[in-house]
Amino acid sequence: MAHWVFPFNHRWPAEGPERLALLGGKGAGLAEMAAIGLPVPPGFTISTEVCGHYLGNGRRLPDDLKAEVEAAMAGLAEATGRRFGDPASPLLVSVRSGARVSMPGMMDSVLNLGLNDETVVGLARLAGPRFAYDSYRRFIQMFADVVLGLPQNLFEQRLEAFKEERGRALDTDLDAAEWETVTRDFEALVESELGEPFPQDPWQQLWRAVGAVFGSWQSPRAKVYRSLHAIPEAWGTAVNVQAMVFGNMGETSATGVAFTRDPNTGERGLFGEYLANAQGEDVVAGIRTPDPISEAGSAARPEAGPSLQSLMPDAYAALAGACETLERHFRDLQDIEFTIERGRLWMLQTRSGKRSVSASVRIAVEMAEAGLISRDEALLRIDPRSLEQLLHPTVDPDAKRDLITTGLPASPGAASGEIVFLAEEAEEARLQDRAVILVRTETSPEDIHGMHAAEAILTARGGMTSHAAVVARGMGKPCIAGAGMIRIDLERQVMTVGQRLFRRGDVITVDGSTGEVLAGAAPMRQPELPIDFARLMSWADEARRLKVRANCDTAADAEAARRFGAEGIGLCRTEHMFVEGGRIQAMREIILAESVAERKAALDRLLPMQRGDLTALFRVMQGLPVTVRLLDPPLHEFLPASDAEIAEVAEAMKVSETRLRARIAALSEYNPMLGHRGVRLAISYPEIVAMQTRAILEAALEASATGAPVTPQIMVPLVMNRAELAIVKAGIDAAAAAVARERGTVPAYQVGTMIELPRAALQAGAIAEAAEFFSFGTNDLTQTALGISRDDSAAFMANYGRAGILPRDPFSTLDQEGVGELVRIAVERGRAVRPDIELGICGEHGGDPDSVAFFERAGLDYVSCSPFRVPIARLAAAQAAIIGRAAAAADRG
Amino acid sequence: MAHWVFPFNHRWPAEGPERLALLGGKGAGLAEMAAIGLPVPPGFTISTEVCGHYLGNGRRLPDDLKAEVEAAMAGLAEATGRRFGDPASPLLVSVRSGARVSMPGMMDSVLNLGLNDETVVGLARLAGPRFAYDSYRRFIQMFADVVLGLPQNLFEQRLEAFKEERGRALDTDLDAAEWETVTRDFEALVESELGEPFPQDPWQQLWRAVGAVFGSWQSPRAKVYRSLHAIPEAWGTAVNVQAMVFGNMGETSATGVAFTRDPNTGERGLFGEYLANAQGEDVVAGIRTPDPISEAGSAARPEAGPSLQSLMPDAYAALAGACETLERHFRDLQDIEFTIERGRLWMLQTRSGKRSVSASVRIAVEMAEAGLISRDEALLRIDPRSLEQLLHPTVDPDAKRDLITTGLPASPGAASGEIVFLAEEAEEARLQDRAVILVRTETSPEDIHGMHAAEAILTARGGMTSHAAVVARGMGKPCIAGAGMIRIDLERQVMTVGQRLFRRGDVITVDGSTGEVLAGAAPMRQPELPIDFARLMSWADEARRLKVRANCDTAADAEAARRFGAEGIGLCRTEHMFVEGGRIQAMREIILAESVAERKAALDRLLPMQRGDLTALFRVMQGLPVTVRLLDPPLHEFLPASDAEIAEVAEAMKVSETRLRARIAALSEYNPMLGHRGVRLAISYPEIVAMQTRAILEAALEASATGAPVTPQIMVPLVMNRAELAIVKAGIDAAAAAVARERGTVPAYQVGTMIELPRAALQAGAIAEAAEFFSFGTNDLTQTALGISRDDSAAFMANYGRAGILPRDPFSTLDQEGVGELVRIAVERGRAVRPDIELGICGEHGGDPDSVAFFERAGLDYVSCSPFRVPIARLAAAQAAIIGRAAAAADRG
Repeated sequence: MAHWVFPFNHRWPAEGPERLALLGGKGAGLAEMAAIGLPVPPGFTISTEVCGHYLGNGRRLPDDLKAEVEAAMAGLAEATGRRFGDPASPLLVSVRSGARVSMPGMMDSVLNLGLNDETVVGLARLAGPRFAYDSYRRFIQMFADVVLGLPQNLFEQRLEAFKEERGRALDTDLDAAEWETVTRDFEALVESELGEPFPQDPWQQLWRAVGAVFGSWQSPRAKVYRSLHAIPEAWGTAVNVQAMVFGNMGETSATGVAFTRDPNTGERGLFGEYLANAQGEDVVAGIRTPDPISEAGSAARPEAGPSLQSLMPDAYAALAGACETLERHFRDLQDIEFTIERGRLWMLQTRSGKRSVSASVRIAVEMAEAGLISRDEALLRIDPRSLEQLLHPTVDPDAKRDLITTGLPASPGAASGEIVFLAEEAEEARLQDRAVILVRTETSPEDIHGMHAAEAILTARGGMTSHAAVVARGMGKPCIAGAGMIRIDLERQVMTVGQRLFRRGDVITVDGSTGEVLAGAAPMRQPELPIDFARLMSWADEARRLKVRANCDTAADAEAARRFGAEGIGLCRTEHMFVEGGRIQAMREIILAESVAERKAALDRLLPMQRGDLTALFRVMQGLPVTVRLLDPPLHEFLPASDAEIAEVAEAMKVSETRLRARIAALSEYNPMLGHRGVRLAISYPEIVAMQTRAILEAALEASATGAPVTPQIMVPLVMNRAELAIVKAGIDAAAAAVARERGTVPAYQVGTMIELPRAALQAGAIAEAAEFFSFGTNDLTQTALGISRDDSAAFMANYGRAGILPRDPFSTLDQEGVGELVRIAVERGRAVRPDIELGICGEHGGDPDSVAFFERAGLDYVSCSPFRVPIARLAAAQAAIIGRAAAAADRG
Repeated sequence: MAHWVFPFNHRWPAEGPERLALLGGKGAGLAEMAAIGLPVPPGFTISTEVCGHYLGNGRRLPDDLKAEVEAAMAGLAEATGRRFGDPASPLLVSVRSGARVSMPGMMDSVLNLGLNDETVVGLARLAGPRFAYDSYRRFIQMFADVVLGLPQNLFEQRLEAFKEERGRALDTDLDAAEWETVTRDFEALVESELGEPFPQDPWQQLWRAVGAVFGSWQSPRAKVYRSLHAIPEAWGTAVNVQAMVFGNMGETSATGVAFTRDPNTGERGLFGEYLANAQGEDVVAGIRTPDPISEAGSAARPEAGPSLQSLMPDAYAALAGACETLERHFRDLQDIEFTIERGRLWMLQTRSGKRSVSASVRIAVEMAEAGLISRDEALLRIDPRSLEQLLHPTVDPDAKRDLITTGLPASPGAASGEIVFLAEEAEEARLQDRAVILVRTETSPEDIHGMHAAEAILTARGGMTSHAAVVARGMGKPCIAGAGMIRIDLERQVMTVGQRLFRRGDVITVDGSTGEVLAGAAPMRQPELPIDFARLMSWADEARRLKVRANCDTAADAEAARRFGAEGIGLCRTEHMFVEGGRIQAMREIILAESVAERKAALDRLLPMQRGDLTALFRVMQGLPVTVRLLDPPLHEFLPASDAEIAEVAEAMKVSETRLRARIAALSEYNPMLGHRGVRLAISYPEIVAMQTRAILEAALEASATGAPVTPQIMVPLVMNRAELAIVKAGIDAAAAAVARERGTVPAYQVGTMIELPRAALQAGAIAEAAEFFSFGTNDLTQTALGISRDDSAAFMANYGRAGILPRDPFSTLDQEGVGELVRIAVERGRAVRPDIELGICGEHGGDPDSVAFFERAGLDYVSCSPFRVPIARLAAAQAAIIGRAAAAADRG
């Protein structure tokens, strides 16, 4: 009865995690292939329990292991017709580690074990002398490294010296006799280093290799890897001993790699490459160009050699059948390694295959429709983040990149264009149909038109939530922010990065997905939605509980959002409506007004414009809820900063520069993030609230004349207690009553607040008395809860990531322990006071899958994100709901 | 049996709140005086229950009230020997409201009720015709206003017209006949306005007055007052009817006010003034100058008339006895009104007397020592905030003030001096023994020497926690911050405030307690500790549980702190040690270093200076704990800002201006409060932590050579999670190990953290795993929890106070709902993980009594505040402990 050793064809009572724990990943995979009848080179697994025994008993193997291994080796001999140490027909084996989870490159293995001065002769007869001696010297080198502890470079130096002596440039230049000489030389090296000859007894080779592989579990690099990936020490590794097979035994032998479907498109059909009469290493080394496996593949590559299908039709048929079996068994695209030895197919490895995003969507949908997997399973297989690639152009990954510098990947997608440094230039260029990149130290609301006109935006300062970043994401335009190495000289119209200088008009490429700024126009890949994308998203919509809205400031944004499936607007920032076109003039009059009357007059001029913008937006969102936020940024953001701008604005506004400067000085703040903004403006200037309420409600009336009404939700930002909100709500209700008087009717509307300050989260119960909805502003809530200004965090965030202090950027993925607890507190306290309160989130985290999963668990009603992230949020919400239902079912079970 | 009406001499079963509720404050006080046998003019109270009945039954008085009132009025007649409506010897009464709590000026009363055309003649015989008719016309006027609803100004206009007609300037110019004419005129006015004559029936006068007083509970101004002070509507008012007595019935009559002790010094002995043959109104009107009551008082005022003691020794003796009785009974300084009518003393009112802070301390201590009150009671009687007056010079409240402008009262005390605009000038002036006021737009660490040299600091920008404010409070120097009207022109060396201009050298006065900037040198009052201050504080120390430490950065601060009774240092900010003297040069080298080695070299130059500063500090604090905070502010605070400074520094440091400017630009931040500071610096520059740890531990070793060792507590600021603190702690421990190796020993030390971010409070459990102590940094915790930058809050805080959104400045008094909940959460979670964790608070709130009470309830171990606030904190902590024990006892009972 097997105790320590499990042949691949061992009969298991049932598959399960216990088997994986005992055999490790590689052993379990080989056993699984053997179990479903695929031709796997015979072999066996020495279980992970032996590893525990070995390491726990002073590196001694269990006493009864010997008999079990010998019996298993006898089984290999029987299966292969070769015998271990037989000079005529030697059985060679590989000895490989295999832990429960893959630890790439961390563990050791030894190939071609069983070769010695006698069996190499037998191998030479079977596979040719050059291959035999090359294999032998590799075995010596590998064994010396893994088992004997001799450094690799000793052997490499010796080989280099030999090649120089013989005038050979490459390993492939050496012939069989020369490899034999190298082999003798390596044997001598081992003997001189260790004072004993290289072990010739195959059994001694085997036992020493097994011990070394178990011992490698304790190597420093393996320990570090485990600590980084939280892999328990106690798991240990298994050892897999497997008969070697050879694809280089003549014209009926071959080796190759195959995918069960096209990993780029997801199309069904065998896809892959092979080399006739070659070993697996030859495919990897890239010395010979492999040929397509299938005839279909050959058709696409006329210059290639014959396909495996045409050359070895029987082996091909066996391979095709094996692939079908594997895909059906594993219910996923498989990435396979195979070898054909003298016409006979051997499956060496199978694993889930990497694939493009398009392929992943298509494969998941097709498998679900074929009944191989459930729709839930199909949804769970797609990484929501990956959808971003489907929606934006990307720099061709194969293209050469002339990297200028790197900044924050602030808004995904890529674009090329001429450098311009001013928003007006961007607008001019657009009129001339020239593609431009707007390069600014930082952007301000006045740059919005230029940003619209540009293909992409690049800033030297600011973070992921800087003006440039937020606006660009809303527009779906690529943006790199905070590329700190860039210096802009507006006078000379140049930008410098270290020693490199770029002038206005020079072409660059901005890759907003990676943060890379490239010189010239990099080749692009245009986005194309995969065939089954719509179907997948419809399944996601059926599966999810969370609603998904979009953050949109304009009708154009809203159109994109509806295209991507948004179910309303969760955040419409009205401040952009204060700067577009000539409005900034009126806004500045508001700021410079010396009396409430003067301010009201300026507001009256803004009213029709704001109402018009909102009417357009509401028309797009007919039938859906739209959350409109009252003016939020501090007023100084609307005033000019540079001397030249100040002079210009003073002249345009017919005020003295002194007065303008005094107002700018009075409004300047040490920490604008924590300053006179949000609801604090509404308290100071109730007439702004009145104007905005009127614009919102009148726009809702006008938009409803042509279709289903929107439900406007008026949102008050930066609230910290009930009194603030109650005062502003009273102002809103009074303005609504005025509209009702004048128009005879007023649309239904709601008043609510953002929860974006820690105090607001704690006081959510009291605030809920005055709020019909909460929308979590997780950007500002993160800034305040963590005390981190996102725009200033670049200086230490990299350190923080490296040191593991903040493994993930809390502005991208919600800090669940800190900010998340505040969200949970606010949800609980808000609902306790007002059970039907509507709860949403409109921070950047609304489009982050892990954060969406948290919001699902926290019980929010909706998430809102930038339009281009809506599909991501829809899928993430579906996954979160599926996982939640599974967890609930498990709890019940 | 009395039901609605209670004569003052009613026998009560026991005193208590029920009696107060029934009689109101005034009625209860009069009853109390009557009960202890003092001569109170007889009277009675119609209870608050009648008010409820009256207002609840359509303004109808209870049916059975009439008989009770008539019986009580008969009692008055008996007691006074006069009868209501008796023309020969008329009984006159006052009818006054008296609610449970004092509502000054809010309720109505009617005096001299009972006068009519007949009784006025009787009164003229008793007190002279001029007084009689003046009283009568006043009664008509008052009755018309309160009862008949005729506006006062009708009568005033009529009187003015009469005086003009007769050529009389003042009321006092009118003689008896003229007052009689006025009286007739007023009667005619009432009749013409109302169509009926002025009521002559005293009983009708009484009932209408009673109804009117009850009705006045519902007057609009009373309602507003109640809603502002949260006084329940249901309480109602009582009505007090009391016989009038007269101090103007000849040379054996008098009227006066007295204190049972000197309210300025607290010295025992009758203190007050009187007027012979006069009414109370005459004292108030200030037409005649009152004379001292006692001979001791006369001695101090040789120019005054004879004392009451010499003039009417019997009455004086009765008064002195009454005062002694009252003080003993009420166990507090009493403020008394009395009248002597024909040699007989009548007590009209007694109430707790207002007093100076010095007097309050002395009185409380003396009463406790005399056994009149307990020590706890003595401690509870002193408002801790008032102690501030004892510790700083103040502007003489009686002096004329030439107010220039007002800013934030950032550090209390007052000082005068010449204006200087630069720190260096302040230092020069000090060498010449000239007193100067340092006037800056804002201060920076480089100004510290100048601040030391100046008498006071005045800044145009910044808030209560600005650099100037924090440093000035630490130094105990007056400071006004954020005086936003001030414009400083450094080139011309002038400051302007509106149209006023002040030059360098002009003398101004800064009142840091009120925020007033005054022109010239205002007269000052120097502080003087009252005799019993030390005793009171020693009682406080026995009573309190909370330890009190001080926030000190220098040995000089620490000396002040020990003098004021600090039990350690809760916060030593090391950043000042980076700028004093030539150190800023080394600090700038650290910032501009291009390699760790360069930075370490600069740190090595700083080490001996920092060690020296700390050694001096530790010597002062021998035997006590000292919490030293690692470098906290962002590095850009150490770099120059203006063009001139940049040029100067670049030259001094031998670096190019370009490089210096580039570094300044790289370090500049949008929101420095939330930027690269605190522990984030420690993570980025571990070599700074190593140097500071070495300086702290070596200084502790050196200081302990001459006395008891201090316990250094190394505090890491701005921590938000465990990992940050664990990494820095490892660096601290490594540096300590290095010191131990070199010196053979290392002092015991602790490592802890500030809790000043909401996330840190929530994660206090995990953080406590790495922290031996927490110190709540409630300044920054308030800024982050509320999302308010203190320095920028002036723009909206005034609105917020007015609108009741934030009734108290959360930077002065802890926001218990928001920030307080975070403190409670952190206390609970920290102690759960580490039960013996030391918990303190070092924000500005450590010196605020209400906040200290909260910290007592939250179970902290200590509070730490600026040295000059230590006595306040000691007393506040004692009061909080006493109240806590009383509450606990009440819970048990």
